[in-house]
Amino acid sequence: MSSTKDIDALIAMMAKLPGLGPRSARRAVLHMIKKRALLMTPLSDSLQKVAATARECVTCGNIGTSEVCDICTSEKRANGEICVVEDVADLWAMERSGVFKGRYHVLGGTLSALDAIGPEELRIPKLMARMADENITEVILALNATIDGQTTAHYIAGELETRGVKVTSLAQGVPIGGELDYLDDGTISAALKARKAL
Amino acid sequence: MSSTKDIDALIAMMAKLPGLGPRSARRAVLHMIKKRALLMTPLSDSLQKVAATARECVTCGNIGTSEVCDICTSEKRANGEICVVEDVADLWAMERSGVFKGRYHVLGGTLSALDAIGPEELRIPKLMARMADENITEVILALNATIDGQTTAHYIAGELETRGVKVTSLAQGVPIGGELDYLDDGTISAALKARKAL
Repeated sequence: MSSTKDIDALIAMMAKLPGLGPRSARRAVLHMIKKRALLMTPLSDSLQKVAATARECVTCGNIGTSEVCDICTSEKRANGEICVVEDVADLWAMERSGVFKGRYHVLGGTLSALDAIGPEELRIPKLMARMADENITEVILALNATIDGQTTAHYIAGELETRGVKVTSLAQGVPIGGELDYLDDGTISAALKARKAL
Repeated sequence: MSSTKDIDALIAMMAKLPGLGPRSARRAVLHMIKKRALLMTPLSDSLQKVAATARECVTCGNIGTSEVCDICTSEKRANGEICVVEDVADLWAMERSGVFKGRYHVLGGTLSALDAIGPEELRIPKLMARMADENITEVILALNATIDGQTTAHYIAGELETRGVKVTSLAQGVPIGGELDYLDDGTISAALKARKAL
């Protein structure tokens, strides 16, 4: 829609990113063109650098720039706890909270009969292999509170049952700052069932 | 928040684009890393190319890749009509509608006493110069229906008064597909004042 095909091609590419559509891509591109020295060239270089170096950690599936990520190589984090998440974004969210001090395992999705995703399509066999290799005492299932996430959690809990490790999952309940009036029935019911003495 | 500073730097850069925040930038970057051959390298190349070639048309202020843009060089569009817009995004919006067949003039903003933006800060003197050079018969003021936009429209109309050109502005009224119940009072009142016989 602009007057040159290079700019149109850039807009079309930006519009494919999640969270951006044609209108916001146009806005972003115009903004970048106006500040091209400050924004465009550094962004292009940065993309190039990340495209060349980013890779999946062979152990946990986190994204980093080395074969084994910083969390997996850090001896400080070998406390026998492993936190299982669906996606790298979830791992980053856990890290932002800064509370978990163990290591991670990224499944790369959830089991789904509809999409024909079984344990072999996820990194579940690799998780089982780590159980033996790394002297794990507790597996924390930090999967999303969706049907697929919970199905996957139950499957993994079942697989781990015979291995004698503690299997836990994130608590479900009222989010901090949440107002009861705005919460769905499922959350209130889960919070009530898991109520605790003050 | 990821495990490497290159990826963090890329996320920080993406988060500065209009329409993206830290969360959507993380999502976009993870998405790109997962499809890096398909998305990241082409996007980086495209940014590089646009950064190197994009420039403002010296005549109208449109963004293109040559000194004078395609619209200004096309003889087909020299019909004596000039459409004045605030920003390149507005020019592209007009072009998408495909109805206007004349040329454009991008002001680069609106007059604003608060921000000390006078006619000299905009491309208003250049517009006046074009009046003499290009044999203009009609100036269509397609400025935003905001206070600053309308102030600027009135200023330009005043400047053009003595030149004997026809000065028009976009009609104001009910947008196509719009429902009266959801429209603001100002729009309804403008549409009523400008009512026409069926």
